[in-house]
Amino acid sequence: MTVSASTPRRLRHLITLENLGADMITRLLDRAEALRAEWFSQRRKLDLLHGRTVVNLFFENSTRTRTSFDLAAKRLGADVINFDIASSSTSKGESLVDTLHTLEAMHCDAFVVRHKENGTAEFLARHVRGSACVINAGDGNNAHPTQGLLDAFTIRRHRPDFSALRVLICGDILHSRVARSDIHALRALGVGALRICAPANLLPAQEELPGVEIVEDFDQALAGVDVVIMLRLQKERMQQAQVPSEQAYYARYGLDARRLRLARPDCLVLHPGPINREVEIASAVADGAQSCILEQVGNGVFVRMAVLAELFDT
Amino acid sequence: MTVSASTPRRLRHLITLENLGADMITRLLDRAEALRAEWFSQRRKLDLLHGRTVVNLFFENSTRTRTSFDLAAKRLGADVINFDIASSSTSKGESLVDTLHTLEAMHCDAFVVRHKENGTAEFLARHVRGSACVINAGDGNNAHPTQGLLDAFTIRRHRPDFSALRVLICGDILHSRVARSDIHALRALGVGALRICAPANLLPAQEELPGVEIVEDFDQALAGVDVVIMLRLQKERMQQAQVPSEQAYYARYGLDARRLRLARPDCLVLHPGPINREVEIASAVADGAQSCILEQVGNGVFVRMAVLAELFDT
Amino acid sequence: MTVSASTPRRLRHLITLENLGADMITRLLDRAEALRAEWFSQRRKLDLLHGRTVVNLFFENSTRTRTSFDLAAKRLGADVINFDIASSSTSKGESLVDTLHTLEAMHCDAFVVRHKENGTAEFLARHVRGSACVINAGDGNNAHPTQGLLDAFTIRRHRPDFSALRVLICGDILHSRVARSDIHALRALGVGALRICAPANLLPAQEELPGVEIVEDFDQALAGVDVVIMLRLQKERMQQAQVPSEQAYYARYGLDARRLRLARPDCLVLHPGPINREVEIASAVADGAQSCILEQVGNGVFVRMAVLAELFDT
Repeated sequence: MTVSASTPRRLRHLITLENLGADMITRLLDRAEALRAEWFSQRRKLDLLHGRTVVNLFFENSTRTRTSFDLAAKRLGADVINFDIASSSTSKGESLVDTLHTLEAMHCDAFVVRHKENGTAEFLARHVRGSACVINAGDGNNAHPTQGLLDAFTIRRHRPDFSALRVLICGDILHSRVARSDIHALRALGVGALRICAPANLLPAQEELPGVEIVEDFDQALAGVDVVIMLRLQKERMQQAQVPSEQAYYARYGLDARRLRLARPDCLVLHPGPINREVEIASAVADGAQSCILEQVGNGVFVRMAVLAELFDT
Repeated sequence: MTVSASTPRRLRHLITLENLGADMITRLLDRAEALRAEWFSQRRKLDLLHGRTVVNLFFENSTRTRTSFDLAAKRLGADVINFDIASSSTSKGESLVDTLHTLEAMHCDAFVVRHKENGTAEFLARHVRGSACVINAGDGNNAHPTQGLLDAFTIRRHRPDFSALRVLICGDILHSRVARSDIHALRALGVGALRICAPANLLPAQEELPGVEIVEDFDQALAGVDVVIMLRLQKERMQQAQVPSEQAYYARYGLDARRLRLARPDCLVLHPGPINREVEIASAVADGAQSCILEQVGNGVFVRMAVLAELFDT
Repeated sequence: MTVSASTPRRLRHLITLENLGADMITRLLDRAEALRAEWFSQRRKLDLLHGRTVVNLFFENSTRTRTSFDLAAKRLGADVINFDIASSSTSKGESLVDTLHTLEAMHCDAFVVRHKENGTAEFLARHVRGSACVINAGDGNNAHPTQGLLDAFTIRRHRPDFSALRVLICGDILHSRVARSDIHALRALGVGALRICAPANLLPAQEELPGVEIVEDFDQALAGVDVVIMLRLQKERMQQAQVPSEQAYYARYGLDARRLRLARPDCLVLHPGPINREVEIASAVADGAQSCILEQVGNGVFVRMAVLAELFDT
């Protein structure tokens, strides 16, 4: 079940980009562009969400994404509650749904949810009783829709014609909600070619990734691409022996200056962050002229503002 | 000593509802009603506490109550400081009174205090040097005045004539600050009959509860009541062997659909939350048509707005 | 290297008071005075930093200083992000500089930094890429410039002519960033005489403190002084056996009523807080008529407002 509307009429929640449709994705990116321009011209908070309350419900640590949503909401004039899970009734045995209904009863208007279990945001969206909306800020390895949108937004600012683009995603695809949301966004926007590269044991089944070309060798995969999206290597993969060592991983799948030259000369480099330097990416590349990593961070705030603004349109 | 004024002229602090008087309680409920209406008609923050700072001083975990005060203060335009006790000087040996004076010196205007020791809020109120006010958000088993107010407010919205009402409070009365504040509020407002029901070892001495009828058997206690307020069973009571088991407790004091039918057909069900499902209350009742539990949560914000607004009237 | 400008033209960061110059220090104190007057006359938030974001980056616990900066920023209209280090990417291996650049990319405008390592704030100031500014809220035993400013501000409100003043600083000078910043501020403002008193093993080398008289005996040191600044005794000094016991320390270096009478009759007593009662200062003195301790706390907010306002002047 996809809670998100499949037409651009009205966004009720943002759970996944799957089936969201090119029109709605484009509408969100256009709105982010407009908000970005407004922010840079005025540096004033907007009044759009004045009187509204956005709750950050983060069951996994993520200062980066939480801060991005926090800033997005505040810059639209909303109040933000950072719901501290460790000290909350949820940790004392109150169910997630009871916590949701309690916060809804206090007239909280939006819930930004991150959870290690797939489907948590959608589960909460189904249990909303009133008009509150749920935004998925990452659930398990399922979806991270605002990351997909901000990656598409970042690429579009440099390469507006998606049909001409060859994009490569490299890293632990199997466990990556970022990869899944990127694929949904890029395919919806009609990307020319989409390629992934990962160690065999970190690759999902082929049928899970329709329309995506799998290339085993990273050097070959890089040939001729316009954009490369590197994924973060989770340290726990190494503890689970899915990755032999950081050095071995870097030798085969690390993006360094030599490898980057195999791509097109103006190839953009993206990474959702936080980066592991000299594990999946060389510092020279992460900090180099082709890197869009910090641009992604900045764009993330505007994209989240756009999502909030769209969800509150009534 | 009661710091609260006994006349409705001026509320200096809110420490307990005891001796607060029907006029002041009614004034606070009326103000909550007006703020509720204003909120629903406009959904805008008010400017009443602009420039003021409200400090949440929570020495016991309570995301629910803290969030309610946080929202109440913000929706009146105040800034809120959630004073993190674990990382504060208080944990490094600075006394509570020095912390209070430090925050007062920074021109903080209101202190919302929760502490496991009886009398902490009153103690702080006595040590305030300037014009700052103290709100008791729960001290030991002594008082939880905003809960008492919000319960009275919730009942009044459905049953405006208190003199006709029969109210039953059931659960661990001995350790319950909610029960004490409910009793003070309901008696001040002239409730028709007030009954309590609890295991013998969780019942205070009769002289502590003047004007209250004690009924041992829950089924008998429910007969003909208009409102039943269920209390939360604290898990630590079981560790202390004051309650034999959740199952045994539920069998004798759990409110399920069968028992609810012993009360009047339109009997309201209240609970301060968070609820323990199938421990003190059945899900069918908690989520049923007679339940006011989420209404209580929503009303709590308006009641706390009213208390803050009243305290800041000068 | 001093990042701070040495002329009063423009403050880029605030890392240390060393070489800041009497003009800039005076300008900041004058601005704090103006903001104090404005606050007391109106009790309204100002709009000066509307749309700006101030980030509290505290790697050491300090509720007191963090709350002071938090209030200062909010009362100027800024949004405040309290960046939680324990749950941040920094604790997951992302470098401090990557965290800085990430927050800068989100258009955060000021970073208030506390760290146990000397030089952290200056290090971050050197790595800022855009126009964001860094404020040192205490680095190791190096500097705590806003404390130096607020101490000078507090003294100036009572004794505007610094050239006539004899000031004594007593306590663990060796480990004290407060002492260093106080000395920089007071010497820049032309203090008449500056004296320090400390146990021999908690005294820096003489050449580190040019222009400062060292007096071993506390009674002798107090003779004729107009201001005494007591320092907090860190409990860890006792664990490291640098201080034999609280009692022994208090006997030799504790400021009690008898000792205070050795100073001038109107001698001001300052302490950065939180105080250890009956360890470095007697309660009778800390709470007495000559104590400026809570005034310091209140002035701290205005001084920090002045620093933020000055840094954002463009």
